[in-house]
Amino acid sequence: MSRPPNDVIIVRYGEIALKSRNVRDRYEKTLMSNITSMLDAMGASYDSVSRDWGRIYIHTADPAAAQAAARVFGVVSVSLAITCEPTLESVSSVAADVGQEIIGEGQSFGIRPRRTGNHDFSSREVGIACGDAVWQRIEHQGPSVDLTNPDVEIFVEVRQNHAFVYTDVVNGVGGLPLGTQGKMVALVSGGIDSPVAAWLMMKRGCEIIPVYVNNDPFSDETNRQRALECIRVLQTWAPGYSLKVYEVPGGEAQVSFLSDCQRRYTCVLCRRMMYRIAAGIMEKERAHGIITGASLGQVASQTSQNMLAETCGIHVPIYHPLIGLDKTEIVDIARNIGSYDASTRPATCCTAVPEKPATSAKCGDVCGEEAKIDVEELLRTALSGAKIVEPSEYS
Amino acid sequence: MSRPPNDVIIVRYGEIALKSRNVRDRYEKTLMSNITSMLDAMGASYDSVSRDWGRIYIHTADPAAAQAAARVFGVVSVSLAITCEPTLESVSSVAADVGQEIIGEGQSFGIRPRRTGNHDFSSREVGIACGDAVWQRIEHQGPSVDLTNPDVEIFVEVRQNHAFVYTDVVNGVGGLPLGTQGKMVALVSGGIDSPVAAWLMMKRGCEIIPVYVNNDPFSDETNRQRALECIRVLQTWAPGYSLKVYEVPGGEAQVSFLSDCQRRYTCVLCRRMMYRIAAGIMEKERAHGIITGASLGQVASQTSQNMLAETCGIHVPIYHPLIGLDKTEIVDIARNIGSYDASTRPATCCTAVPEKPATSAKCGDVCGEEAKIDVEELLRTALSGAKIVEPSEYS
Repeated sequence: MSRPPNDVIIVRYGEIALKSRNVRDRYEKTLMSNITSMLDAMGASYDSVSRDWGRIYIHTADPAAAQAAARVFGVVSVSLAITCEPTLESVSSVAADVGQEIIGEGQSFGIRPRRTGNHDFSSREVGIACGDAVWQRIEHQGPSVDLTNPDVEIFVEVRQNHAFVYTDVVNGVGGLPLGTQGKMVALVSGGIDSPVAAWLMMKRGCEIIPVYVNNDPFSDETNRQRALECIRVLQTWAPGYSLKVYEVPGGEAQVSFLSDCQRRYTCVLCRRMMYRIAAGIMEKERAHGIITGASLGQVASQTSQNMLAETCGIHVPIYHPLIGLDKTEIVDIARNIGSYDASTRPATCCTAVPEKPATSAKCGDVCGEEAKIDVEELLRTALSGAKIVEPSEYS
Repeated sequence: MSRPPNDVIIVRYGEIALKSRNVRDRYEKTLMSNITSMLDAMGASYDSVSRDWGRIYIHTADPAAAQAAARVFGVVSVSLAITCEPTLESVSSVAADVGQEIIGEGQSFGIRPRRTGNHDFSSREVGIACGDAVWQRIEHQGPSVDLTNPDVEIFVEVRQNHAFVYTDVVNGVGGLPLGTQGKMVALVSGGIDSPVAAWLMMKRGCEIIPVYVNNDPFSDETNRQRALECIRVLQTWAPGYSLKVYEVPGGEAQVSFLSDCQRRYTCVLCRRMMYRIAAGIMEKERAHGIITGASLGQVASQTSQNMLAETCGIHVPIYHPLIGLDKTEIVDIARNIGSYDASTRPATCCTAVPEKPATSAKCGDVCGEEAKIDVEELLRTALSGAKIVEPSEYS
């Protein structure tokens, strides 16, 4: 006798459940909408998406739908399950069918029962009934019961109006539903760090507006393409949201830094200009902050002293989600989210970087350098040259 | 025949090796000094600490020294090892002694050879010689060689003037040596988040100046003790550095917020005052920034809109290392670093928190509320009441 087919994906979410009723309701709706968009984007088949008491259900037998749901921000875990009646007879029969199919010769198994709602039996009785039923069905192959570390786990979850039987709990990406935490401008250079920084904020529910500062002629099309490829990866995590991508010319400012300012301050001056550009776009888009990929001490110029000098006089909230992470941790995330390959494509480095960049720039000195050039005019020029990148360039 | 005793701990570090020669030299010296402090603080016995070509060596047979070294920021991994001559005869003899001691009946083993320097043999020959020697010594117990997934690994590392044999590589905490990345003011409330945020910045090499804002009479001594207990945990990670801990009275400002400002803005106004207090101490201590435990969307008031309103007009760099992390990730770090128990001690909550805090505060509205009170005077009062907490209170 073959087991009934999987017919539902149970989607679990974590932090949302801690919110007040109204907030939770709003977050759940956003999450359902985001799940639907991801299912569609990844070509998974499904009948419908519903919710009930702190869970979302995708009605489908398609394993690809489980993979898609696990990629949606806010989802803690998913399980492809069989729906049955909330009775001991029904769950134990299905558990036995499932056990027969997946428990191998001589393997141990454990039932993981759970129950919510009003029934005339306890979760312990669910465990006993299902364990007995599985045992009887496969007795001939010498099974054993092991509740601590079994070879095979069978989860049986009885709720008020139905029950579920499943064997796998797949981790989701976690976080909060995209679209619930405002929006920010994300500076994306195409290196390993900046896409990871943007992704972490997306994971916490924040919409992003990617900005690529094109320092042509100090960088070239390989650099630009690499950044767009990273943005393409970020877009795959936000299928219901069409990213608005800005490209802003920064080359003219570089020319000024190189011709009029002390060479060792180029990187600090460049970052200040990038922050100003991002702040300009933030204002235009009514966003709430700026995201960078800075990690303390990772490269010579990422000192706390430089970071202080990079922001003096620039009055917008700047978020550095990677500030406390090691390069190895950042690379691990980049691999997991799929941006690592994009970020390590061959691309030219910025040719404006000095041989010996300042590592302890002072606010006063930096402002003194800026006094030699017309920062406001350079910023105006850059922002007036800003353009929206066609979605076809990164999708 | 028993194997020779362990006599050295090999300490490996990661990102430091990527730095320029001068920076690397400085970082290595700091790391050695920090390791020595940790060994002393944890009561590990050792003869000396030395360095040679991208490694640091602790000359000791004490396993506690390996545990201590693994807790030092900047250390990627440690191995307790046996030193021997850099010859095939010596390493294969020691490898055989080690193999005899630790390879059980019927277990598989693999040699992991590595060689740097000039020798008249290759690393492959090291592997073959050691593998043969181990095999001959334990042939009677039916061993097998498995280079992919062996039960027991024996690492043999030949360097110019000596060689090492060891079996374990224990992960260190990573990061950069404490003291190499400037210093910052860390707001520590005693909850789960703020100590983790401070620790992550310490991990990246940043010295911290903890600041506890005491909102008495809206919080009490249990709250203060919890914060000090968290600071005590942080101090154990920085044995060579005596933390300078500030306690600043914030209660008077709360009284003003409660009596003169709209109730729902209390938390935003309170955070702004805390940032101002921290900025005052930052200036006094010539620090480079402020660290907070904010995580986007974790609680109702941590919206990106509120965070924007919390900082408008406050012009210092504010770092939120947890901004992109989930609560579960933060709790995992808290458990690993030992602050979780301290943060979850019973303590009263702040009684000034309104029932319905604003979740989308606007800069203009917040500044309008502040115009009703004398923020500058409240700040002066708070800072003039700042005192340094006696180390005996958190050690």
